[in-house]
Amino acid sequence: MVKAIEWVASTNPPQIRLIDQTLLPKEEKYLEITDVVDLVDAIQILAVRGAPALGAAGGYGVALAISQGQREQWDDDRLALEVGRIRDARPTAVNLAWGTDRVLGSLRALTATDEAFSQALSEAHQLAAEDEEANRALASAGADWLLDQLGDRPLRAVTHCNTGALATTAWGTAYGILHELHLRGRLEFVYVDETRPLLQGTRLTSWELSRDGIPHAVEVDGAAASTILRGFADFAVIGADRITRNGDTANKVGSVALALAANYRGIPFVVAAPSSTVDVDTPRGELIEIEERPAEEVLTIGGVSLAAEGAQAFNPAFDVTPHELISAIVTENGVVEPGVEDRPLF
Amino acid sequence: MVKAIEWVASTNPPQIRLIDQTLLPKEEKYLEITDVVDLVDAIQILAVRGAPALGAAGGYGVALAISQGQREQWDDDRLALEVGRIRDARPTAVNLAWGTDRVLGSLRALTATDEAFSQALSEAHQLAAEDEEANRALASAGADWLLDQLGDRPLRAVTHCNTGALATTAWGTAYGILHELHLRGRLEFVYVDETRPLLQGTRLTSWELSRDGIPHAVEVDGAAASTILRGFADFAVIGADRITRNGDTANKVGSVALALAANYRGIPFVVAAPSSTVDVDTPRGELIEIEERPAEEVLTIGGVSLAAEGAQAFNPAFDVTPHELISAIVTENGVVEPGVEDRPLF
Repeated sequence: MVKAIEWVASTNPPQIRLIDQTLLPKEEKYLEITDVVDLVDAIQILAVRGAPALGAAGGYGVALAISQGQREQWDDDRLALEVGRIRDARPTAVNLAWGTDRVLGSLRALTATDEAFSQALSEAHQLAAEDEEANRALASAGADWLLDQLGDRPLRAVTHCNTGALATTAWGTAYGILHELHLRGRLEFVYVDETRPLLQGTRLTSWELSRDGIPHAVEVDGAAASTILRGFADFAVIGADRITRNGDTANKVGSVALALAANYRGIPFVVAAPSSTVDVDTPRGELIEIEERPAEEVLTIGGVSLAAEGAQAFNPAFDVTPHELISAIVTENGVVEPGVEDRPLF
Repeated sequence: MVKAIEWVASTNPPQIRLIDQTLLPKEEKYLEITDVVDLVDAIQILAVRGAPALGAAGGYGVALAISQGQREQWDDDRLALEVGRIRDARPTAVNLAWGTDRVLGSLRALTATDEAFSQALSEAHQLAAEDEEANRALASAGADWLLDQLGDRPLRAVTHCNTGALATTAWGTAYGILHELHLRGRLEFVYVDETRPLLQGTRLTSWELSRDGIPHAVEVDGAAASTILRGFADFAVIGADRITRNGDTANKVGSVALALAANYRGIPFVVAAPSSTVDVDTPRGELIEIEERPAEEVLTIGGVSLAAEGAQAFNPAFDVTPHELISAIVTENGVVEPGVEDRPLF
């Protein structure tokens, strides 16, 4: 299993070590980050991504900021400002803020001292360890639920984006369920959406599936709905970047098409995410702010322009799946079946 | 309006003038074709594409072959052989043979004479004029229906693939409706799916919309459903490659996600195509054979590999939208509303 994010204590200054996911699968290069500005940049270019990995990035980010603050003699205001920059690097990704806030909450004071640094680092390590444990519980609960619903037989899946080791601190969320089914001999085939614009499916999920020896094919995102409607898949499973109190979920743009198709065809549509993804302060999905990303992601590939000069693009990073299209929300705490009624689930 | 194909009588020898669609949008280069060998080549490399445009290419091709035969003193056998090469340049493109055969059928004899040339040219012009007339009727019927359904106000649309002037001899099918609304001052904005894998939306539709001064943005195909669910569009409109007797339609892969989303949101989902697209011999969409195209279209862009070595892809060219998700099927003969019942519509 590849490690998406790791704290390296043995260097001076200490580092957050990230595999640069923008270069995969061509190149397996690690970023060795010691400064807040580089961490924010890595988060924004999606060198690190995925809800759980971003939670760890936020948590370790506090320790990193304190370490930099000690070297550069930041006062408390400056330190708070820099931590805030990490926390808000990506607005829709609730785990980033969650990880940051959890570690902040463990500190007596956010100040550039040895004591604060070691408190922050200890809490971030704890967060990552809990995340890994939670990830195993989630994968197991999801696999159990699916085999219970669909019968104890090899299943065919559709998934979107990347929710594997690269997105988490362990096997992954939606990918964790697929991996667990594979270990149990109950995964026949996976259709992987390429996941435009950044092609996380083609570049990352396909790469992870190959490493794990799981039979699969990449398809364009537009093919996902018909793969489901034609009966080629027994279920669809995706991750989530945010889950609102009523069970509406935000995930990589393109996800809701799978939900609509699964609902139409009558197969399970499963959302898997750590419970930290649940945002109880947001009652419904329509209140989620949807991050819009640069037009160039749509209009170019690998730096090569695809469109006529002056073309405009609309590039929302996420979409929202209404709870009534979701068969099951799987977290480390178990399975919730949202149903059609609009009510607080969490 | 760009002309995908045009007869130029003012040059000596006369020409078929084609915009080379393989170079768009980077380069707007016209092929000035006077010889059969060059016409066959242009058809085979897809410099000209789209069923109606290929019908015109076949028709004008007969006149071109006669003209070349006059210059080069071909006997009747040679002339018939050369016309046959045009007719069969793309065996699966039924309109190419249809256009060739229609013009051949109008001749007293296929022979390299002034009389045969002028008969052939006259019939080819007639074919193109009828196609253009049908196209206008379709566009007008579609625009009328939408304004009747949605109120006489500026509308926002989502569309998929390319259905414009480049694919036809006039404004296009789905694109024709958009253009007609634009002329009437009733088109506010168009969201154009990029249309993976071959990016006809980014390369062709966006280019046509820019030339026509229609405000628009390109989006990844995965964004289409959420654009609709978020209320950013008043309707969705696509073309069709085949329409079965009960109103199920096959179109470029990715289309059915728009239909599912439009249905969920309760906005009109419109399919526009010439009546020649209706296949009365096929009762239902599930009987349509879905062409699978090479994996490289998914796994590479512009020759650059996107995936890890050895990755597999599933690449269906089309998907099928069930009739009950379609609000209106628009042809040059008017509008049919399929409804939920499964019954012969055509």
